[in-house]
Amino acid sequence: MSEALAQAQKALYLSNPNPRVGCVIVRDGKLIGSGFTQAVGKAHAEVQALANAKTLGNDVAGSTIYVTLEPCSHTGRTPPCVDALIVAKPAKVIVAMSDPNPLVAGEGLEKLRAAGIEVQCGFLESEAQALNRGFISRMTRGLPWVRMKIAASLDGKTALPDGQSQWITGPLARADGHHWRAQACAIVTGVGTVKEDDPSLNVRDVDTQRQPVRIIIDSKLETPPAAKILQNPDQSSVIIVCASLDTPEMQAKAKSFEECGIEVITMANAFGKVDLPALFSYFAKEREMNEIHIESGFKLNGSMLREDCVDELLLYYAPFFMGEGIGMANVGLMNSLNNRQNWQIIDQVLFGPDLRLRLIKN
Amino acid sequence: MSEALAQAQKALYLSNPNPRVGCVIVRDGKLIGSGFTQAVGKAHAEVQALANAKTLGNDVAGSTIYVTLEPCSHTGRTPPCVDALIVAKPAKVIVAMSDPNPLVAGEGLEKLRAAGIEVQCGFLESEAQALNRGFISRMTRGLPWVRMKIAASLDGKTALPDGQSQWITGPLARADGHHWRAQACAIVTGVGTVKEDDPSLNVRDVDTQRQPVRIIIDSKLETPPAAKILQNPDQSSVIIVCASLDTPEMQAKAKSFEECGIEVITMANAFGKVDLPALFSYFAKEREMNEIHIESGFKLNGSMLREDCVDELLLYYAPFFMGEGIGMANVGLMNSLNNRQNWQIIDQVLFGPDLRLRLIKN
Repeated sequence: MSEALAQAQKALYLSNPNPRVGCVIVRDGKLIGSGFTQAVGKAHAEVQALANAKTLGNDVAGSTIYVTLEPCSHTGRTPPCVDALIVAKPAKVIVAMSDPNPLVAGEGLEKLRAAGIEVQCGFLESEAQALNRGFISRMTRGLPWVRMKIAASLDGKTALPDGQSQWITGPLARADGHHWRAQACAIVTGVGTVKEDDPSLNVRDVDTQRQPVRIIIDSKLETPPAAKILQNPDQSSVIIVCASLDTPEMQAKAKSFEECGIEVITMANAFGKVDLPALFSYFAKEREMNEIHIESGFKLNGSMLREDCVDELLLYYAPFFMGEGIGMANVGLMNSLNNRQNWQIIDQVLFGPDLRLRLIKN
Repeated sequence: MSEALAQAQKALYLSNPNPRVGCVIVRDGKLIGSGFTQAVGKAHAEVQALANAKTLGNDVAGSTIYVTLEPCSHTGRTPPCVDALIVAKPAKVIVAMSDPNPLVAGEGLEKLRAAGIEVQCGFLESEAQALNRGFISRMTRGLPWVRMKIAASLDGKTALPDGQSQWITGPLARADGHHWRAQACAIVTGVGTVKEDDPSLNVRDVDTQRQPVRIIIDSKLETPPAAKILQNPDQSSVIIVCASLDTPEMQAKAKSFEECGIEVITMANAFGKVDLPALFSYFAKEREMNEIHIESGFKLNGSMLREDCVDELLLYYAPFFMGEGIGMANVGLMNSLNNRQNWQIIDQVLFGPDLRLRLIKN
């Protein structure tokens, strides 16, 4: 199963919105085939592994197949993997975790059992789950797994008062940041960051065939048309989320964006701002987004945290005091330390001179 | 030597201003005596170990003695350890590190060699040095090793705007803080912290026979006479450092402190503030202080850092965002991120939910 998980790891940047799944086929203690989920619309891990075995001239009948997620039993963009497995006649299928969708969980396993194949489930389950937090979140909560990245000094400053923020952290930490960008279905930022830092927000430092969608939260459609983030919409799509298209002026702005291939959507709350919780729900349910990566500034970071939209924090600390500067997140004023919302540190790792903390909700 | 280092560790809270030294005596592969430096004025590690061997009825002649620091060859508060060792006639003395005082380094080893004892030096040297950073600093630089402790939220806030700061971190992190307090010769704070938090600044959560001196940086002698830090001067002495005693009013204030057993000293810089670098030099040279532990607030932390007085940072981060609040250190405004002063993270450890970072100068 460790080898199957290693296969699944290869799908990390690739398989979205499909889960990252790995599959290995073993007979007489020998690996006779392996595979992982390909890009959307292409083969799933099981079909890849079966094809790999065939290419190698190996017969799968009577073998044991290890797969990190319950094989699918429905026809989506590709035919059900369960059918392909049944045809291949393995003796045994061992699964790390069942389908996270509670409506279908177990169906794939039942079909295999009904075909006379021995089935076991639950090996290295938590490792398999960790690979697909986003997919599980979308299936079970109807929400993406939202990860917020912030790079700051020891005293929690992300930029000098004049906005200078390049670079807080060193090249190793920045490369690690791109690794997390590459896993996401989408990268979200705010119009403030677009105006101040003019980032491209694409994936650069790691090797990937897929660029995440880039999303700008921009209530009033103030994104400058010359912004770098808009300059390569062919490589990855860009979505601007505004709060209203009620006026002719806003409609004209939206039209000019759309003419450049940029999608504009509207998602307003009662205060005339972008409704962030509704937006994430929409991204999961209508756009099949598993993981969303936020790289934004003080204001939007604060809104995301106050509106309880964030599942994981990815904090990079560079080892210096900045003194005066812009803070990490505008979370406002607490009345008492007893009202704090605690996170849980799940790992602390150095990247060169910088520290990375990962935290999840407590 | 590992066992000798473990013995030295037992002197961690005890031996100041003497170095923490451990000594073990081995013959035929058997431990026949061990000891560590006692409280100031009492026996050094070597004499303790020799006495321990005698108590156990073991003859030291012909043995191998492991000691974590070169034995002293001069008469200080106690007679030279070298003489006691020569009398005991071991075959061999193995030393982790030589005396850090460049004026005397090697003398003890030479005397042993002259007495016909085989001597080796340099085993587990860096571990032995780590135990006595403060003593080494005082001997080689004429300065104490200055460690600054700050507890903050993820976004670098140490208190709510109203001053509320109890408690940022949890009990395990606070107990670790007391472990570092207990090692120090003195704990330094500012009058601002005394007024706002009214801390006792004694060692509580660990078992120790010695309380560090408590020092208040208080230019204008504004420490409230009822402050907790002044309430038990019998247990540990308190020193208030002011910038001037030129006026009758200041002299009267100083007198009333002195009548309560509190020492008042003057150390001014050209700006009428306490001269921090001169003060630390004075503490090393005149008061034999090895390690100084700073627990202060935004203003004094900033002065300490700006005036380059700090050798080590002990930063505790609690896993929440505070939002509005008081920062870690008033280090002012940087013109450019290129002018930053980098630190080096030497370890990152969790204490319950909280993270502790240790950093030294880069």
